[in-house]
Amino acid sequence: MIVEKPDIKYLFEPESVAVIGVSQEPGKIGYKILENMLYVGFKGDIYPVNPKGGHALGYDILKSIEEVEGEVDVAVIAIPARFVYDAVVSCAKKNVKMLAIISSGFSEIGNLEEEQRVLNYARAHNMRILGPNIFGHYSSKVALNATFGPRDIAEGNVAIITQSGALGIAMIGKTAVQNIGLSSIISVGNKTDINEADLLEYLITQDETKIILMYIEGIQEGERLVKVLKHATKIKPVIVIKSGRSKRGAVAAASHTGSLAGSDKVFDAIMRQCGVLRAESIQEALEWSKFLSHSNVPKGPNGIIITNGGGVGVMATDACEKYDIKLYDDQDKLKETFESVAHGFGSTKNPVDITGEASKADYVKALKEALVDDSIHCVMALYCETAMMDSQELTEMIDEMYEQYQTKGKPITFSVFGGELTETAISVLHKKNVPVYRDVYDGVSCMGAIQSIRKVQSIEEAEPVTAEIDVAAINQIIDDALADGRTFLLAEEGQGLLNAASLPGPRGGVVQSVEAAVKLADDIGYPVVMKVVSRNILHKSDAGGVLLDLDNSEEVIDGYQTIIHSCKANVPDAIIDGIEVVEQITAGTEVILGARRDANFGTTIMFGLGGIYVEVMKDVAFRAVPLSNRELRSMIKEIRSYPLLLGVRGEARKDIESIITALEKVVSLISKVPRITDIEINPMVVYEQGSGARAVDIRVLLSDDKKDSPQ
Amino acid sequence: MIVEKPDIKYLFEPESVAVIGVSQEPGKIGYKILENMLYVGFKGDIYPVNPKGGHALGYDILKSIEEVEGEVDVAVIAIPARFVYDAVVSCAKKNVKMLAIISSGFSEIGNLEEEQRVLNYARAHNMRILGPNIFGHYSSKVALNATFGPRDIAEGNVAIITQSGALGIAMIGKTAVQNIGLSSIISVGNKTDINEADLLEYLITQDETKIILMYIEGIQEGERLVKVLKHATKIKPVIVIKSGRSKRGAVAAASHTGSLAGSDKVFDAIMRQCGVLRAESIQEALEWSKFLSHSNVPKGPNGIIITNGGGVGVMATDACEKYDIKLYDDQDKLKETFESVAHGFGSTKNPVDITGEASKADYVKALKEALVDDSIHCVMALYCETAMMDSQELTEMIDEMYEQYQTKGKPITFSVFGGELTETAISVLHKKNVPVYRDVYDGVSCMGAIQSIRKVQSIEEAEPVTAEIDVAAINQIIDDALADGRTFLLAEEGQGLLNAASLPGPRGGVVQSVEAAVKLADDIGYPVVMKVVSRNILHKSDAGGVLLDLDNSEEVIDGYQTIIHSCKANVPDAIIDGIEVVEQITAGTEVILGARRDANFGTTIMFGLGGIYVEVMKDVAFRAVPLSNRELRSMIKEIRSYPLLLGVRGEARKDIESIITALEKVVSLISKVPRITDIEINPMVVYEQGSGARAVDIRVLLSDDKKDSPQ
Repeated sequence: MIVEKPDIKYLFEPESVAVIGVSQEPGKIGYKILENMLYVGFKGDIYPVNPKGGHALGYDILKSIEEVEGEVDVAVIAIPARFVYDAVVSCAKKNVKMLAIISSGFSEIGNLEEEQRVLNYARAHNMRILGPNIFGHYSSKVALNATFGPRDIAEGNVAIITQSGALGIAMIGKTAVQNIGLSSIISVGNKTDINEADLLEYLITQDETKIILMYIEGIQEGERLVKVLKHATKIKPVIVIKSGRSKRGAVAAASHTGSLAGSDKVFDAIMRQCGVLRAESIQEALEWSKFLSHSNVPKGPNGIIITNGGGVGVMATDACEKYDIKLYDDQDKLKETFESVAHGFGSTKNPVDITGEASKADYVKALKEALVDDSIHCVMALYCETAMMDSQELTEMIDEMYEQYQTKGKPITFSVFGGELTETAISVLHKKNVPVYRDVYDGVSCMGAIQSIRKVQSIEEAEPVTAEIDVAAINQIIDDALADGRTFLLAEEGQGLLNAASLPGPRGGVVQSVEAAVKLADDIGYPVVMKVVSRNILHKSDAGGVLLDLDNSEEVIDGYQTIIHSCKANVPDAIIDGIEVVEQITAGTEVILGARRDANFGTTIMFGLGGIYVEVMKDVAFRAVPLSNRELRSMIKEIRSYPLLLGVRGEARKDIESIITALEKVVSLISKVPRITDIEINPMVVYEQGSGARAVDIRVLLSDDKKDSPQ
Repeated sequence: MIVEKPDIKYLFEPESVAVIGVSQEPGKIGYKILENMLYVGFKGDIYPVNPKGGHALGYDILKSIEEVEGEVDVAVIAIPARFVYDAVVSCAKKNVKMLAIISSGFSEIGNLEEEQRVLNYARAHNMRILGPNIFGHYSSKVALNATFGPRDIAEGNVAIITQSGALGIAMIGKTAVQNIGLSSIISVGNKTDINEADLLEYLITQDETKIILMYIEGIQEGERLVKVLKHATKIKPVIVIKSGRSKRGAVAAASHTGSLAGSDKVFDAIMRQCGVLRAESIQEALEWSKFLSHSNVPKGPNGIIITNGGGVGVMATDACEKYDIKLYDDQDKLKETFESVAHGFGSTKNPVDITGEASKADYVKALKEALVDDSIHCVMALYCETAMMDSQELTEMIDEMYEQYQTKGKPITFSVFGGELTETAISVLHKKNVPVYRDVYDGVSCMGAIQSIRKVQSIEEAEPVTAEIDVAAINQIIDDALADGRTFLLAEEGQGLLNAASLPGPRGGVVQSVEAAVKLADDIGYPVVMKVVSRNILHKSDAGGVLLDLDNSEEVIDGYQTIIHSCKANVPDAIIDGIEVVEQITAGTEVILGARRDANFGTTIMFGLGGIYVEVMKDVAFRAVPLSNRELRSMIKEIRSYPLLLGVRGEARKDIESIITALEKVVSLISKVPRITDIEINPMVVYEQGSGARAVDIRVLLSDDKKDSPQ
């Protein structure tokens, strides 16, 4: 009997929660969780459980979960690891849906077997597991604080998923201090069952959550995560912090969590592809979360800077380039809009400089002009403290303008520089959640985040690319290789795979006569290469069985004779099966195409220019599979050496379409043939536009433990 | 009569200051300056001046500076621009040493003539000018606040030089709020006379100043600034903020200040070469200033991270890579030192993880171990809020440990994450100037800054490179070109210049006989190129006067005849002066060498790999001249394609020494021949190590307004 797995929503909206491991003594983890649940006022039923029984916080402690009379949606398990399995067995008897296993002592310390045993039992009995090794979870929807962290959690619309316990607990405090409200916070710990993808699927449907912030150390089920993220980011902003960016950081991360960190460059590319905002630091992630949770997505790209100081205006311009904000550039329109406010030595160019003489009224006038102008989509206001505004005027100006911008749904940030007066204004405005910052980079960074969200949400989801390949023929090649005890393909097998995928390699064939050789060579076009085909001749060149640079039919006729003659002379008994006539690959632009299937990371493809560009300049781009034609094109454009494909120094444009086609084939190969784990075509020689490309060499790695249908 | 210019120290240590433009009415700029001077309590004599006379703030206002009885070191001039010249004339009569011209309305609005007139007069009368268009200056040494900015300036050891008035005034407030004390702040405005280099020369000698922070929009006298900065950074940390990093920001900066912003990539390279710390934002610059002003430079590179959370430990590891901090890596030593503190699931690896169970005593123990271990040179402590320490314990722990580290002169930073309890600790510790941060990146960034200072100060100043070149011969070539009405060199002139600099171009010479041709070709080595030399034949190839690929003496003999024959046939009347026999340049690695003299930016040199690497990949490095051999080498190593010079894919190492030699020649050319403004050798073909290099083509631009001796 196949039963649907219980819905993740029971974790966030349970009607009843049992806490297994509540002792009578305060201070213990189970007790603390019960205390937090009561403090926040969970709306459902609570059942403390402990074999010793007794009383705690006004509740009778049940000796077993089986004593509960009603249903139990969630069982929070906070007992030593060695007792967890038995508790899970009891939970199954009670038909519990969700197990939040707080206990540590499982895979994070190498105890994989016990974790697997618990997981297998839970799966068999249709229960889902959060954790183990977590601090718990919080859901504002039902006022559930089932954590042993701080009891005070500010309520709001940011959901946090964290793989780090210590950081997660600290973030509860930090968000409260920074006035960032949470709709939920979920500690995922060892992610033995429930992972980010499961939680995202639920959170994007939940009205309480507007922003999703994830702290990730390592990923699992990469392919599924990519799919879920791509969908999620179209609906709600997703911010990710992933440590282990640096080489040494990746090593530290691996030793800390046991997670395979993977290449950060690949992770970064995939996150961008999925429309995720990746923050460098916790502080940046929290600033973005706060700004995004209060501001509307702008209606277009055009940004404007309004300032009373030229120097900070220039800095904000720099920051706009860093955070990819388009500065509105219609000089005539700008002049028309801001002429009346940029008097004296000011400037109507963007940055609009209303000078150090600007009063509250001048700021209000300039900001109102920007507000009503529909070709301006977002505003970054800057202020250097002057004698023209006191603290109260500054506060009022910002407060009023922010309210008007909010009403109209146009995002605005304020970056202010100054002393006590300015600080006083900042602290009043922060309490009201007005986006006021102490540096231009902070404000512009937030505006860059919201512009990024606009871009992500404005791109329509596109069909994934797929291409026709002869899967049966390819499987035959793989069967033969595996039967031969190899997990890689030989050169001829690789050529066979190229053919089965209709990927153009050097054209050619085997002939048995001079006439046929000439005919084939004429078909292929010169120059051609000729090689002896004989099971008796292993080292063809040594036997005089290879000729290059054959430029016309006469040379082919001569060559045919020469090869037969040389081979018979050198290997007298050889049976000559024929002569292979192959297109000689002429020089062109060398590119490299790759694909890799990774258990954690999912399937990724890679593209770059070959040779030195990939080896020395590390100039390659990555994307996750599946992906659309548009994403393939953006991958090609992303490499620094892309101008070489467009043609530089008087060269013609290269056949980029043939690269796209080849990449589509590679994507299909790795997607449709599960036993292929790695493909590298290197080099593929690309000719001028319209003249195609040739895959010169292909390297394929296999796995023999995936005989079933594609993932 | 040549008189020494008055010493800049009079600006910082005047015994008497006149304020020209003090009206009786409060609110006017002159009045405000007098008020600030009195508020801070200037230690010298004060003379308010205004033709209208009267009284202000208890002083009689003099009608002219000439009425002052004693000496006047500094005259602060705060009157409309049109009256400034006359005031300066009066100051000259009084032998004033320094003029701080607050007034605006000069070159910043296009009024260059008036500014030049004032400057010429001041120069002729041996007075120096700060400004015009400034908010004034402050010097703690004599308690002089001669600004119209905030009157409260926190006293300390950071000197600020700012080109932006608005930002400078705001920074006075901001530093006070952030508890950063100033030894001085100087607004340089239009920099008509006194610029950053003048001020730096003084500030490095001043005991009050420990850190120098400069906000720059554009530079002048680049060559001198580079020289002064290189020296200054060996003595005191110099932090620079320069806006206009982005393309659009550079345009905005140019329109704001009229300064030529120059290429930011060049500026950035020069600042690094000079040992300057370049901050991206004001906030970063202030954080660095504060940390550097209180902490000692570490004794070595080894950093260590101590944490109670694995996740933040990994983030700090990432940050260490970003800010170039070496993490101490001796695993045995680490284990020995930290074994006793990293119990349970902790780690003695770096990051040292003392786990979420760590108490105050555990932190103290771990930090003390790191303090006494002399192979550890700096410590970054991290803390995620747990129930193991309350606010007071956290505060005490950090306070005590900081004090012990300060006593031992070992730098330490603390990055702490948490809620109210942690915030309370932070605010107490900030008041005591303890380096506590809210994010790992902030703390690590500061540690990176101080490690950078250690590196800069530990490198000894090296002799600038110079090479022998035949300046007389080069000047003759330039004279001829300029006489011909050109400000560029023709191809043959370029070759002549290469010869005069002993820069190896293709070897060769002109011969008048077949025998001589063969002898020369044998000397050069084959293949060679032969070209006709005739004043009557302009288009040598068209006349059949050029032959390539001559591989042996027979071909040279044939070629000689062929050229004579063809030329006589094609241009019957041509007088043939001889035949040029030249080495044919064979393929090698192409590099590009450049040098440029810029009025603002000084002299810079450039190096990169030629062709696509420079054109498409923009893979070039810059340095300012003069520079040492070590700096030349570091420039070559800096390009991303450097591995190509070392030899990749089985190729041999290239002749890097010959690149160094050629760069030394280029440096000497641009340094010793003032009329050369631009040199570009492109390509220079570099062969395998020991086989040298050949400058194939050289492009030289000239200026005819620099006939004198080298700068």
